[in-house]
Amino acid sequence: MPLYDLSIAELRAYRGEVVRPDDFDAFWSATLAEARAVPLAARFEPFDAGLKIVEVFDVTFAGFGGHPVKAWLILPRQREGKLPCVVKYIGYGGGRGFPHEHLLWPAAGYAVFVMDTRGQGSSWSKGDTADPVGSDPAHPGFMTRGILSPETYYYRRVFTDAVRAIEAARSHDAVDGARIAVTGGSQGGGISIAASALDGSLKALMPDVPFLCDFPRAVGLTPRDPFPEISRFLAVHRDKVERVFATLAYFDGVNFASTDSTPALYSVAIMDTICPPSTIFAAYNAHAGAEKAIREYGFNDHEGGGAFQDRAQLDWLSGRI
Amino acid sequence: MPLYDLSIAELRAYRGEVVRPDDFDAFWSATLAEARAVPLAARFEPFDAGLKIVEVFDVTFAGFGGHPVKAWLILPRQREGKLPCVVKYIGYGGGRGFPHEHLLWPAAGYAVFVMDTRGQGSSWSKGDTADPVGSDPAHPGFMTRGILSPETYYYRRVFTDAVRAIEAARSHDAVDGARIAVTGGSQGGGISIAASALDGSLKALMPDVPFLCDFPRAVGLTPRDPFPEISRFLAVHRDKVERVFATLAYFDGVNFASTDSTPALYSVAIMDTICPPSTIFAAYNAHAGAEKAIREYGFNDHEGGGAFQDRAQLDWLSGRI
Amino acid sequence: MPLYDLSIAELRAYRGEVVRPDDFDAFWSATLAEARAVPLAARFEPFDAGLKIVEVFDVTFAGFGGHPVKAWLILPRQREGKLPCVVKYIGYGGGRGFPHEHLLWPAAGYAVFVMDTRGQGSSWSKGDTADPVGSDPAHPGFMTRGILSPETYYYRRVFTDAVRAIEAARSHDAVDGARIAVTGGSQGGGISIAASALDGSLKALMPDVPFLCDFPRAVGLTPRDPFPEISRFLAVHRDKVERVFATLAYFDGVNFASTDSTPALYSVAIMDTICPPSTIFAAYNAHAGAEKAIREYGFNDHEGGGAFQDRAQLDWLSGRI
Amino acid sequence: MPLYDLSIAELRAYRGEVVRPDDFDAFWSATLAEARAVPLAARFEPFDAGLKIVEVFDVTFAGFGGHPVKAWLILPRQREGKLPCVVKYIGYGGGRGFPHEHLLWPAAGYAVFVMDTRGQGSSWSKGDTADPVGSDPAHPGFMTRGILSPETYYYRRVFTDAVRAIEAARSHDAVDGARIAVTGGSQGGGISIAASALDGSLKALMPDVPFLCDFPRAVGLTPRDPFPEISRFLAVHRDKVERVFATLAYFDGVNFASTDSTPALYSVAIMDTICPPSTIFAAYNAHAGAEKAIREYGFNDHEGGGAFQDRAQLDWLSGRI
Amino acid sequence: MPLYDLSIAELRAYRGEVVRPDDFDAFWSATLAEARAVPLAARFEPFDAGLKIVEVFDVTFAGFGGHPVKAWLILPRQREGKLPCVVKYIGYGGGRGFPHEHLLWPAAGYAVFVMDTRGQGSSWSKGDTADPVGSDPAHPGFMTRGILSPETYYYRRVFTDAVRAIEAARSHDAVDGARIAVTGGSQGGGISIAASALDGSLKALMPDVPFLCDFPRAVGLTPRDPFPEISRFLAVHRDKVERVFATLAYFDGVNFASTDSTPALYSVAIMDTICPPSTIFAAYNAHAGAEKAIREYGFNDHEGGGAFQDRAQLDWLSGRI
Amino acid sequence: MPLYDLSIAELRAYRGEVVRPDDFDAFWSATLAEARAVPLAARFEPFDAGLKIVEVFDVTFAGFGGHPVKAWLILPRQREGKLPCVVKYIGYGGGRGFPHEHLLWPAAGYAVFVMDTRGQGSSWSKGDTADPVGSDPAHPGFMTRGILSPETYYYRRVFTDAVRAIEAARSHDAVDGARIAVTGGSQGGGISIAASALDGSLKALMPDVPFLCDFPRAVGLTPRDPFPEISRFLAVHRDKVERVFATLAYFDGVNFASTDSTPALYSVAIMDTICPPSTIFAAYNAHAGAEKAIREYGFNDHEGGGAFQDRAQLDWLSGRI
Repeated sequence: MPLYDLSIAELRAYRGEVVRPDDFDAFWSATLAEARAVPLAARFEPFDAGLKIVEVFDVTFAGFGGHPVKAWLILPRQREGKLPCVVKYIGYGGGRGFPHEHLLWPAAGYAVFVMDTRGQGSSWSKGDTADPVGSDPAHPGFMTRGILSPETYYYRRVFTDAVRAIEAARSHDAVDGARIAVTGGSQGGGISIAASALDGSLKALMPDVPFLCDFPRAVGLTPRDPFPEISRFLAVHRDKVERVFATLAYFDGVNFASTDSTPALYSVAIMDTICPPSTIFAAYNAHAGAEKAIREYGFNDHEGGGAFQDRAQLDWLSGRI
Repeated sequence: MPLYDLSIAELRAYRGEVVRPDDFDAFWSATLAEARAVPLAARFEPFDAGLKIVEVFDVTFAGFGGHPVKAWLILPRQREGKLPCVVKYIGYGGGRGFPHEHLLWPAAGYAVFVMDTRGQGSSWSKGDTADPVGSDPAHPGFMTRGILSPETYYYRRVFTDAVRAIEAARSHDAVDGARIAVTGGSQGGGISIAASALDGSLKALMPDVPFLCDFPRAVGLTPRDPFPEISRFLAVHRDKVERVFATLAYFDGVNFASTDSTPALYSVAIMDTICPPSTIFAAYNAHAGAEKAIREYGFNDHEGGGAFQDRAQLDWLSGRI
Repeated sequence: MPLYDLSIAELRAYRGEVVRPDDFDAFWSATLAEARAVPLAARFEPFDAGLKIVEVFDVTFAGFGGHPVKAWLILPRQREGKLPCVVKYIGYGGGRGFPHEHLLWPAAGYAVFVMDTRGQGSSWSKGDTADPVGSDPAHPGFMTRGILSPETYYYRRVFTDAVRAIEAARSHDAVDGARIAVTGGSQGGGISIAASALDGSLKALMPDVPFLCDFPRAVGLTPRDPFPEISRFLAVHRDKVERVFATLAYFDGVNFASTDSTPALYSVAIMDTICPPSTIFAAYNAHAGAEKAIREYGFNDHEGGGAFQDRAQLDWLSGRI
Repeated sequence: MPLYDLSIAELRAYRGEVVRPDDFDAFWSATLAEARAVPLAARFEPFDAGLKIVEVFDVTFAGFGGHPVKAWLILPRQREGKLPCVVKYIGYGGGRGFPHEHLLWPAAGYAVFVMDTRGQGSSWSKGDTADPVGSDPAHPGFMTRGILSPETYYYRRVFTDAVRAIEAARSHDAVDGARIAVTGGSQGGGISIAASALDGSLKALMPDVPFLCDFPRAVGLTPRDPFPEISRFLAVHRDKVERVFATLAYFDGVNFASTDSTPALYSVAIMDTICPPSTIFAAYNAHAGAEKAIREYGFNDHEGGGAFQDRAQLDWLSGRI
Repeated sequence: MPLYDLSIAELRAYRGEVVRPDDFDAFWSATLAEARAVPLAARFEPFDAGLKIVEVFDVTFAGFGGHPVKAWLILPRQREGKLPCVVKYIGYGGGRGFPHEHLLWPAAGYAVFVMDTRGQGSSWSKGDTADPVGSDPAHPGFMTRGILSPETYYYRRVFTDAVRAIEAARSHDAVDGARIAVTGGSQGGGISIAASALDGSLKALMPDVPFLCDFPRAVGLTPRDPFPEISRFLAVHRDKVERVFATLAYFDGVNFASTDSTPALYSVAIMDTICPPSTIFAAYNAHAGAEKAIREYGFNDHEGGGAFQDRAQLDWLSGRI
Repeated sequence: MPLYDLSIAELRAYRGEVVRPDDFDAFWSATLAEARAVPLAARFEPFDAGLKIVEVFDVTFAGFGGHPVKAWLILPRQREGKLPCVVKYIGYGGGRGFPHEHLLWPAAGYAVFVMDTRGQGSSWSKGDTADPVGSDPAHPGFMTRGILSPETYYYRRVFTDAVRAIEAARSHDAVDGARIAVTGGSQGGGISIAASALDGSLKALMPDVPFLCDFPRAVGLTPRDPFPEISRFLAVHRDKVERVFATLAYFDGVNFASTDSTPALYSVAIMDTICPPSTIFAAYNAHAGAEKAIREYGFNDHEGGGAFQDRAQLDWLSGRI
């Protein structure tokens, strides 16, 4: 599918359709407070990944509900002093995989902390973290689990895990807790936007073709999953449209970005059929920070900038943390 | 996709590839005993379905883990004495829907008891029953939830609900508990095979193009969901093939059918690309009862016999319960 | 395919592109007069449908050209006085099927009269009525048969049958001829719009995601059959575009609706890729009656409201006939 | 779709699955006798096709039922004596089109007589011949019209037209009636096989990737139309399988070929997904003549040999008529 | 895919997005001068094509770089005086094929000169001409070969060949060099637009659904090859967008048409998904000649007018050369 | 597409269909001798890849015909003594990309030398190496360039480049020339098989789901590119089947493997629709070395073992070089 969204000029000015709930901040404050009531209990076990010039730890920490969440911490073996750390979240359906799938940041001299996504990790890279919470009737996939209220929605648990992951990364001796960046592609990008806003003290935010932004526009605009999981749910539950979008407003990247002033480097693909470019510009344009940039890839679908964006992130982050 | 499975002659003789675990019966006895330790607590609340010549009850009963499971009980308004009852299970992704979607059996003079499938009911007909149990990492869909052990597998809960549904149907005053049949199409057919074997006292079993049979052959044979949910899980979790098939053996229709002697009417579609005909013949050929028949639809895909099979069931069941 | 038609606001105001031929009424008056010159000769033969609480008649009546047209008449077995009757038309490619496929209205206390569609009934539900009239060169399907003039067009015969079906329903003793509604989904909805306008004395019209409206917009807008049968015909007969649309104007739902003041309940699916929502709004907005309503299903394709719309029709019709 | 049918060695030996009805010859003798009872009435009207070195006639003759059938007769303008003539039939969905679409044989010095196919000519090349006969319920397309008995089947009319076309070609002064060949691709090839056998006096038969052979194997083997029109009809009319195949046996190329000893040049494409190669070999292997050959195209789908086969036909026919 | 481009009214006014490079004429003058520095060396060898009423020559001439380029010259065998000649170019992926694939113009009394396209001729009709020039990294296909500069771009060689083909046609004794027309469909149409402008002395230009026009709009507008070869190249070479479009401007049909006043007959298909109608109107609207016409086919995809357009060309060209 | 090739038992015994040409070795000896007549001229220029713990060189060396071929050499920055080196080839359509796309082997302590593939690098990862050689008519893609003789075939140049790449790697000071392994996925795997056999002195061969094996079976077995490029070429050039397969025999992995005794670790995916498992087993089973192993991935398509195979290679290679 070629160009189907707004024109470039319209995209650069587009503000999104979502409305911020009055109790958005209260909802998330309460959620995080509840999570933090359980000790983080981060464990870092040395892991033989078959590699030589990096050091790998198999991490477990207490996420939402105190549930154990897995991660990798990977450090350059040769290092001096505490390291700046990139916390990385994973795209939809994937898991933390193997440590050797995450060598970019260590090769560039950073620590990387890769959070597993609860319940996922069975569609393209393997995951090791259970989601022990059930759900009301839901469409196959993760997008509609518990979607009838913000309290039960799946991403409440994931975003909370994501904030706790930053705290877990900070808790390791080799990491300089004042120099943390978050990143991720697609769902990982969406999570990074939420985590950055919720943590509030990061040095850099680098969402790559982020998902989970501007739901009111996204749902119905693109035929490619996972946004259409929500359409299909609503095609059955025809009487629950209002409730579903009321829930989603608490998880919309636009609503996180609009109060976040962390320096940010976004990317967007103009032919993206999974995360329509307008939904990404909605978040980017809302982002509250003065120091922000977005890389536009004019002829790419959801693969976005790929290795070009990796390089752009390396350059942009260099010296920043 | 046209003919792709065994020839008709081979199908009629095919016995399946699954092996029955030694502790199959023990596993299920323990499972049911555990479920029955919680009171059934079936509630039948009158429901205004906008209909005149039938009477509808909104049913709730305690399924696996004591979790509340929903159902409809629909009775002809004009009736004499206790009624024979057809317990009906729903196809993959569907839910109990509306009462007016289940008028066939009442129109033919039977009670019908329609069980909701926990967690489903968001892909084509709506469901109202939560599955409050979480899962290890799983592929979108229900096929791989908890698949790493029989104890945690999703269908352990569903099949247990199905047995309890029969008990709930029996508990209603208008129903003659000695005259119960089970039926269902696709996943509903697979559930009916399990429920019939596990209950052990039914008068008739009518699985229509049943799903969930002969997993070792089915997984990898057809490209159409839901069987491939399992292939895709294994494509990621390349190291868990053995464990997954060990779990599935406890839920395979062939292993239920081989000890069940309930009179049975199966149907099979020779061009079925969702439930390959060989997998259905594996169950049918294994069925232990002397009184059994199967309708073959030579040019149909998964829609099977449709209204022809409805009529065949009406005729076959008539006088039998 | 997600949203592709006009916005909701535009849809609600959209008036269609078709022009009403000057002799539209004359054409149909002459057509009906010609048909009524042949005696209706409705026969009602009792039919054993395997059901108990309804009574079924196998109906034959003289349609267009005096050709025998089949139907089912299904009545609640327990009844008092004459019954209001719902005349139901079938979707494209289907036929009257089995009586047990039409239990909704009898279960709600109405008579239902289900008209077979001549020549169809071989794509999803079976039909029993021949169309003994041949055709000039036509594209596979029914949309272009005889399309080079209104006199020879296929739907001239079908719409005439539809009016005669109402007359046949009225002719049965159990039916109260003053309390007739028409309904149908897709093609059945399009037929109901024509039949209501042509009969002129009905109590209710309930077209569900109706087809056959606003041809000038529909042809070329959607890639999913059956509208594209016409595009493909014109892709070959490049010199007949004008003649084809001149014919279609006599069969366009918009032109029937604009003079019909029967109380009406429409439905429309905003993501419908077979009957684009604009074409349905064109008919609905043109409808001449003051008492009209339309149910919008925002996330559905051509399945529309499904069982939700059934329920909406039950409620809306209740007390109205 | 790559290789999916029998191996080359198996193909070359394959005999087909169809059985020849006892009254096959009687059926066709009666059919032709009935057709010939109406005068052929071939009219040849000069037609300005915008061409210079050929002469074109717009032909009308009485086909089955005396119905007017259209054709083109195209002759090299410079000619001496009577010409050998190639009678050409058209592929499924096409019509006789324009004269300038049929220049190969005139360019090679032959007369060509191109028969229109009744009712078709609206899918890729335009047709001008009506099929004035209606049908019982049928699936869109021509394959199932009147399929419940040989007497009413659509191809009874077409094959009869085809025999009459040969007679019409012979009736023109410029044509040497003793030197006639028949040819056609796909459906045109199937028609040529029937016409050659029914005429019984031709000099050459050149079916190119012929359709309409070995129905019992073809239906269900390939997913690409038009064979699956029959499967889909049977998927609805599940109770008419036997009748349908009983009808088709009277129209199967294998049954025509087995008594025809006309010198023949077939072609077959080994990757043909519309006319499976086995069905073509079934006819070729059955062909009764000693002088026969088949060109195999190992890497082609239904486009077959294309211009290579044109050239092969030019060479093979040269000197033969 | 149905209508997706501008409305008819907008199309008729649309001017394209491409900008003409300042040195456009200089670039092409230099290119042609360089080619003409090598002798044309056209050889015409009699060829036995199996045909009688035409005479065929297998042609070789020196194209770009002096590379040997193949062609067919086909003449009516019966002729008086010199003939007007139609030079024909081939669509993307095809080659000159067999002489018997090009009989239209000879049948109408013209000479036809059919140029092979270097390197192509392996996707649908066979070619016989090598392209001895290699390329920088390129996407499969011909669209991106040498695309990083006008000097190395593949179509520089092809368009030069096309001009030389006209010169080769003129060089044959039977051809009247003052009466030359050029034509071709799709890529052949695009080549004809360039050749007409570059030759500057033709009597008629007949591009049929021409390709290679208005690249800035075309690339990204349609998902069907070959335009998307460029998008996919740019999806990888994300840093070369500007260079690629700078190159393409030298090869854009709009830039050729805007200085060409040759009488012209264009065709366009309004549902064309390979050559979007706007891109064709951009060239047509830019065409500098007063004597121009365009045939619009409202319901066709890239097959365009097909045999209707052949006939339109026959009529339009008649008397003109 | 699920299982479509031989059964597991048949795969493990399958020997392939290709025949080794008598002058296979002579052809390759002459080819390499010719290439080695040009000085290798390997240049290693330091490259700033934005990374810290590895050292990167931008490499250029003389490949086939002395043409400049690009590569990356990446070394762990902290190292002692000469390093064992893995030479890596790239999958079809890709190029050497960025250095940061090749961090696995350096992270494990090896040098990695990544060869660009001439002409490719425009479909998924970018390439920087031209293929300055043109071609006879060819199908889009690289599979049929120059395919009419072994001398002109595209892969003659690529395989020669691959041997020279090993020599270039050896020529760097940091590399221990006696400890070289080759690897690559898909096309890269096919190249590695050829390079290993042609070099003759390697310590390890690790082809991952290798392409380019057993052409006679592969072409026609799978519908997914790139093997079908050859089928489509032959579908046009119907008269060149024999020549094409005669050429391919000189480039078939089976013919390289059968004389190579290098220790080898293969991988194969049983559901691979691009490189059918039988074609890979044909090479593996032919491999002449005693020390060989193959990892089978039962539920994977062409993604094969992915990160699991990376880990398997790390473990298998450890201690071996």
